[in-house]
Amino acid sequence: MALSVEKTSSGREYKVKDLSQADFGRLELDLAEVEMPGLMACRTEFGPSQPFKGARISGSLHMTIQTAVLIETLTALGAEVRWCSCNIFSTQDHAAAAIARDSAAVFAWKGETLEEYWWCTERCLDWGAGGGPDLIVDDGGDATLLIHEGVKAEEEFEKSGKVPDPESTDNPEFKIVLTIIRDGLKTDAHKYRKMKERLVGVSEETTTGVKRLYQMQESGTLLFPAINVNDSVTKSKFDNLYGCRHSLPDGLMRATDVMIAGKVAVVCGYGDVGKGCAAALKQAGARVIVTEIDPICALQALMEGIQILTLEDVVSEADIFVTTTGNKDTIKPQTDRWVFPETKTGIIVLAEGRLMNLGCATGHPSFVMSCSFTNQVIAQLELWNEKATGKYEKKVYVLPKHLDEKVAALHLGKLGARLTKLTKSQSDYISIPVEGPYKPAAYRY
Amino acid sequence: MALSVEKTSSGREYKVKDLSQADFGRLELDLAEVEMPGLMACRTEFGPSQPFKGARISGSLHMTIQTAVLIETLTALGAEVRWCSCNIFSTQDHAAAAIARDSAAVFAWKGETLEEYWWCTERCLDWGAGGGPDLIVDDGGDATLLIHEGVKAEEEFEKSGKVPDPESTDNPEFKIVLTIIRDGLKTDAHKYRKMKERLVGVSEETTTGVKRLYQMQESGTLLFPAINVNDSVTKSKFDNLYGCRHSLPDGLMRATDVMIAGKVAVVCGYGDVGKGCAAALKQAGARVIVTEIDPICALQALMEGIQILTLEDVVSEADIFVTTTGNKDTIKPQTDRWVFPETKTGIIVLAEGRLMNLGCATGHPSFVMSCSFTNQVIAQLELWNEKATGKYEKKVYVLPKHLDEKVAALHLGKLGARLTKLTKSQSDYISIPVEGPYKPAAYRY
Amino acid sequence: MALSVEKTSSGREYKVKDLSQADFGRLELDLAEVEMPGLMACRTEFGPSQPFKGARISGSLHMTIQTAVLIETLTALGAEVRWCSCNIFSTQDHAAAAIARDSAAVFAWKGETLEEYWWCTERCLDWGAGGGPDLIVDDGGDATLLIHEGVKAEEEFEKSGKVPDPESTDNPEFKIVLTIIRDGLKTDAHKYRKMKERLVGVSEETTTGVKRLYQMQESGTLLFPAINVNDSVTKSKFDNLYGCRHSLPDGLMRATDVMIAGKVAVVCGYGDVGKGCAAALKQAGARVIVTEIDPICALQALMEGIQILTLEDVVSEADIFVTTTGNKDTIKPQTDRWVFPETKTGIIVLAEGRLMNLGCATGHPSFVMSCSFTNQVIAQLELWNEKATGKYEKKVYVLPKHLDEKVAALHLGKLGARLTKLTKSQSDYISIPVEGPYKPAAYRY
Amino acid sequence: MALSVEKTSSGREYKVKDLSQADFGRLELDLAEVEMPGLMACRTEFGPSQPFKGARISGSLHMTIQTAVLIETLTALGAEVRWCSCNIFSTQDHAAAAIARDSAAVFAWKGETLEEYWWCTERCLDWGAGGGPDLIVDDGGDATLLIHEGVKAEEEFEKSGKVPDPESTDNPEFKIVLTIIRDGLKTDAHKYRKMKERLVGVSEETTTGVKRLYQMQESGTLLFPAINVNDSVTKSKFDNLYGCRHSLPDGLMRATDVMIAGKVAVVCGYGDVGKGCAAALKQAGARVIVTEIDPICALQALMEGIQILTLEDVVSEADIFVTTTGNKDTIKPQTDRWVFPETKTGIIVLAEGRLMNLGCATGHPSFVMSCSFTNQVIAQLELWNEKATGKYEKKVYVLPKHLDEKVAALHLGKLGARLTKLTKSQSDYISIPVEGPYKPAAYRY
Repeated sequence: MALSVEKTSSGREYKVKDLSQADFGRLELDLAEVEMPGLMACRTEFGPSQPFKGARISGSLHMTIQTAVLIETLTALGAEVRWCSCNIFSTQDHAAAAIARDSAAVFAWKGETLEEYWWCTERCLDWGAGGGPDLIVDDGGDATLLIHEGVKAEEEFEKSGKVPDPESTDNPEFKIVLTIIRDGLKTDAHKYRKMKERLVGVSEETTTGVKRLYQMQESGTLLFPAINVNDSVTKSKFDNLYGCRHSLPDGLMRATDVMIAGKVAVVCGYGDVGKGCAAALKQAGARVIVTEIDPICALQALMEGIQILTLEDVVSEADIFVTTTGNKDTIKPQTDRWVFPETKTGIIVLAEGRLMNLGCATGHPSFVMSCSFTNQVIAQLELWNEKATGKYEKKVYVLPKHLDEKVAALHLGKLGARLTKLTKSQSDYISIPVEGPYKPAAYRY
Repeated sequence: MALSVEKTSSGREYKVKDLSQADFGRLELDLAEVEMPGLMACRTEFGPSQPFKGARISGSLHMTIQTAVLIETLTALGAEVRWCSCNIFSTQDHAAAAIARDSAAVFAWKGETLEEYWWCTERCLDWGAGGGPDLIVDDGGDATLLIHEGVKAEEEFEKSGKVPDPESTDNPEFKIVLTIIRDGLKTDAHKYRKMKERLVGVSEETTTGVKRLYQMQESGTLLFPAINVNDSVTKSKFDNLYGCRHSLPDGLMRATDVMIAGKVAVVCGYGDVGKGCAAALKQAGARVIVTEIDPICALQALMEGIQILTLEDVVSEADIFVTTTGNKDTIKPQTDRWVFPETKTGIIVLAEGRLMNLGCATGHPSFVMSCSFTNQVIAQLELWNEKATGKYEKKVYVLPKHLDEKVAALHLGKLGARLTKLTKSQSDYISIPVEGPYKPAAYRY
Repeated sequence: MALSVEKTSSGREYKVKDLSQADFGRLELDLAEVEMPGLMACRTEFGPSQPFKGARISGSLHMTIQTAVLIETLTALGAEVRWCSCNIFSTQDHAAAAIARDSAAVFAWKGETLEEYWWCTERCLDWGAGGGPDLIVDDGGDATLLIHEGVKAEEEFEKSGKVPDPESTDNPEFKIVLTIIRDGLKTDAHKYRKMKERLVGVSEETTTGVKRLYQMQESGTLLFPAINVNDSVTKSKFDNLYGCRHSLPDGLMRATDVMIAGKVAVVCGYGDVGKGCAAALKQAGARVIVTEIDPICALQALMEGIQILTLEDVVSEADIFVTTTGNKDTIKPQTDRWVFPETKTGIIVLAEGRLMNLGCATGHPSFVMSCSFTNQVIAQLELWNEKATGKYEKKVYVLPKHLDEKVAALHLGKLGARLTKLTKSQSDYISIPVEGPYKPAAYRY
Repeated sequence: MALSVEKTSSGREYKVKDLSQADFGRLELDLAEVEMPGLMACRTEFGPSQPFKGARISGSLHMTIQTAVLIETLTALGAEVRWCSCNIFSTQDHAAAAIARDSAAVFAWKGETLEEYWWCTERCLDWGAGGGPDLIVDDGGDATLLIHEGVKAEEEFEKSGKVPDPESTDNPEFKIVLTIIRDGLKTDAHKYRKMKERLVGVSEETTTGVKRLYQMQESGTLLFPAINVNDSVTKSKFDNLYGCRHSLPDGLMRATDVMIAGKVAVVCGYGDVGKGCAAALKQAGARVIVTEIDPICALQALMEGIQILTLEDVVSEADIFVTTTGNKDTIKPQTDRWVFPETKTGIIVLAEGRLMNLGCATGHPSFVMSCSFTNQVIAQLELWNEKATGKYEKKVYVLPKHLDEKVAALHLGKLGARLTKLTKSQSDYISIPVEGPYKPAAYRY
């Protein structure tokens, strides 16, 4: 590939679409900060002590304005940061420009090819001769994957002299990964192992990435500690329940301009996404019907006055369908509307709730991302602070309850909340520490 | 002005931006029909008997896709129609094109000058030698105004030979009206009086237009019967309560992408618009505070758990402000967001609820407009059917209760509702006619 | 009848069950005052100027604790008061005792015979030689009826010497009325005419009483001005919408202990009572279905996501039925529960919403009655203040809008509300008086 | 004690207040069955195969009508049952009578002394010469405690000849326990050990009982397997969230008759109980404020538009206080109302949400108890079915997820729900078994 890294006047590397968009990016960054109070509270609380002093953080996560606020929170806490996107389309170029100019090494632009994508990922992990990053912020697990595959290849190469063969796989993207690793082997056969040695840990954002980590843990191949922030209450409830409750009507209105009141809306699945979608539709005046396979979730819907039927029962009378299941053979998951010429009745079929916010609206609002990203910051701090204690082994951990609570606490100030503090005597009486954790691990919220 | 009327191959007059957009307009018209069940039900119920056979209808009302469905409902019932917009910016050119090509004489385009606007209005009223329209559909009262001013000028001219003097007014728009009338006097000094003679009546859509009509009624200058459809329950509740409940969060999200949940939102005024806005914000998870001058509306808010405070009380803690009052010295009514640099707290100030749907979103959804426009159709039918009975004098009437109920009934089928019908014996027992009206005139719903 | 009036040590007349219950009544009166802020605010605002100084008020209205707070508000404003109940069963004897001992002449006890009932009504109206009351507070119109029938009989007697014949009617209660009047004629043939002469007016509480008044107005037989407080917004919305929203689940739970969540509940009628019942059931987690004859109310239900079906459609699947219509041939209106032995499914059939609060719970809460009774106080004040101006003729009037607003205003303080006050300039700008009325008469709230 | 066991004509032992109340108990039992669909569905599904054939079940759980439905479900599935109450006041004597006459050995009456209480518990466990029960249904753990203390005493006696000394404890109730065990030792020094040997396991209903079990598990003293049904989703959400959402307004209205709409209500704690209370108060029209120590729960409240403040912030403006925390130094937890004479403002202080339903209303509705008790039946079945497999060791287990789901499923039919069933192909695609469990163990619902 003919890609070449550029440098700012201060010498920081980058590769973005158009650095001149940095001012526009900065403007939107300033606005986003107001809606990301958890990250801003991190800066206020932790900034003065510079806890990330000396830490190198590589991040692979959609290079958006919201992520830019995350990056500048990490640097405000003392970290040095390199970044790439975790999706070829998701970069906001003005965000990338502002960060590249002002704060961190960025390799990301909207519309990368797959080759370019993996080149960016490699750049993001490459901190020069001294090895790789101390910490990784991951979304989907591609940065983690590259290191694991790199280490595997280096070990095989050392053992047998064999290099990875891109032709050994049918998966076009994995071909590219193998090519990059193969090419890297020629110049430095210890590159990924040096990374592994240095790495304190990774914090992972998504269901997909977390699933991969648990598989590696089970097979005994996980090379460094991992914190699963995907299952924090402050991540999952916001991404799913509160986020979709906000985004579903937004996306629905932008996509169709249809009046929700008076319509019959079917929500397939009553998990957190379905609960959020159903609540929003009900409150907008729709009559909501839910389909479920899980009797507990079905019973919960009934307790809210929502009817449980099958798709066959409702297909002829419903106006709006929302699938939240990701399953096949349900309603075809795309945003579209068919008008049946004979009846002139329309059916609106919406994408899965968790995607419609991206497809039809503008993604999760910044406040939701503030919750996710504050989990990332707190997880990174935890890994870094405990790097010498052995607290975290090469396993996958959920964020400890008191840190999940910390993420919530960091958002309360902006919302004007005044928390009650236990007295020592009350704390003793109910056997709950003054500083938390306030709930047992299995608490359902 | 150098404007000239064009003609379709069938000889129908028009003046639109671009007739080639007609196909695109037709496509959107087809989609809108699904969401305007009241109008479609009118076609089904009344179409076969062609009640408007022989009626000429002139309409002055935003030439949008939704209005296009209204126009084609009037023609489907047998009317001949001429149309102009009632606002220089509100025409959707593809809607105008589709109607001009297929259904009615249209004189409207987006971005008219004021001169062009009044030329269009005059064209719309001009049915040639035989006089003007039989019926007027008015929105804001400009068509009605032109006829009244025209008649006044003709009578003055006949009496004293004086023609209107555009220089007699400082109002730039009224100058144009006087000019048009003055120029018309030269060619036909009975034009507007012939219109007046032929006119059966007008049905008026808006608060502004209705106010003018009542003033003319009081001063004894009203020249023909008028039906005020603005105060029908099926118009006012939909435009205000249900319409704003739908549009407020839509506009708010499109304008700001801000998470509503957790915010403190202030709604100034708790009339129907305020009730709709407050309900939507509350349901989206905001803490809503209302300001009110009216103690009854204030008490209603309290019964919904909403705090009543003054603007001074809340200005420092609230995140979102919505004014529904149209009053001065309240929050400045424009959609904007200021971030105060010192505090980094943002205040979102929104336009009046009733305008935000236009300014920030896409206007009322078609279903809301179906309610308004079905009122228009039913009012036009009532005027036309009673033209010979003397039922309507030169006064302003609200739509009779049973017709307001009829408008509602025309929307029920599409929503799957099954109405109960009184038996004769039940009807006698509770002294309510089987066919309605079901409520006394002052009923509050 | 062998009934005889008793006297307190201060000489005030009374006839109650047991004066020794006065202390218990006083205790409950003290508690009720907290929940009747409108009446208490009347005492604070009007008490010092003693506006009822010199006024004799006779009241015929359920002699309950809540009514006791009304009576003592009237006396706190300077009135002299005599009272009877308007229902043979509704008197709370401890309330009657407390009032009799401390504040006003009371003739009421729980479980009167019809003869006793009318004897009490006559006592209540009898102020001795100087004629009757200046003002009447009526509920159901019995006090008003007695005077009208009395006057009619005296005039007939004067004209023809004929006395009323109890045997002329089949109605057992009317027989008693005629007997009382006939017997009175023997001692004073001008008694009711003297009452009529003195009477400034009546304020009437209920639909039934108001209906009678309008009939007398139409037939030209109404003898004095009447204010209909039944149709004040602050009366009707509280009695119907807010009152039933509160009382329906209360009565339902007390009567059946059934879990509302998850049930299918049918509400017959979606007027204010039905709206209140449906809202309460929906919020408690029932799936609500409404039956309606009125298409406007049906459309309103649909806009809240409520299905509209007929009784036939739902009878086999619904668990709870609430009738709000008062019509015949609907669900049989009594509170009961049948378990069909074959299916073991139960159907709960509830009394009409407006009665279930009495039948199954404890009637409207005091706050609701505070709204009704403050309307009574304000109406009485209005009649008294305008007694010499001729403002009120022998017609039926609804309470003027600004006084309806006043009733609301008197309740706001206790609920912590802070009303906004228009500046003079704002008032001019929107043409609304600073002191109200803030809405046109036909406003729907 | 002079208590003696009585026998029915069929020879079954009992000791109840008044066997002649059995018919009345049967009537209420018939009604309760309709509202306990989970238990009835158990009878339908499992009854024919008589899975408890040969099983002796002892239950220590409030002897109410609802529990009677549980007992007859156990007998309908083939079990032989003995029962006592777990509280000296909670027995409904007509329920005890019906069960004693018709279905099981009962030792329970309202108003037992502590001595009588433990006599009843001992009777309940005493199945004669062949040892004790096979299974225990426990609520609070008293039956489990008696066996553990009995075994401990027998072992000590065997080892050292020492008998328990009631004087060794200050706890008056534990004195009684020790007395019973000491007296038993004289007649049979292997009684409790024989029980232990026979016992398959216990299923425990409450937080308190479960806590004791975990303590015994940790100290290694637990003598038999235990299933914690307290933490099933279908138990905890119903007891806490849905149960309190139903019972709070019910208890509040019965206790105070106060209008909830318009009031300021403070809920201390926003766990499941607090969430249920807050939802009910909000929906009834109160303005709700929450106090919290847990930032995650606080953030959840904010997402519903509920303000988070401290008790100090609100104590002067709030009308209603509900404590859900069980902590000390909060609002004093009793149901009362003080009217401060100076201000005439009242404060309503309610008992802890989880107790108010008992104190002020009639306890949880039957549907909620159906969920709890179906958990008990399913847990008992699981213990019994696995008695020979070694699946359950001497540990505490939560009910396996698929059985929690089964409990929910057993309630769906009565609520008219139609569950969707995965196809084999869908099941494979999303890696979820067709028959469940549908969610991972840590899923939060």
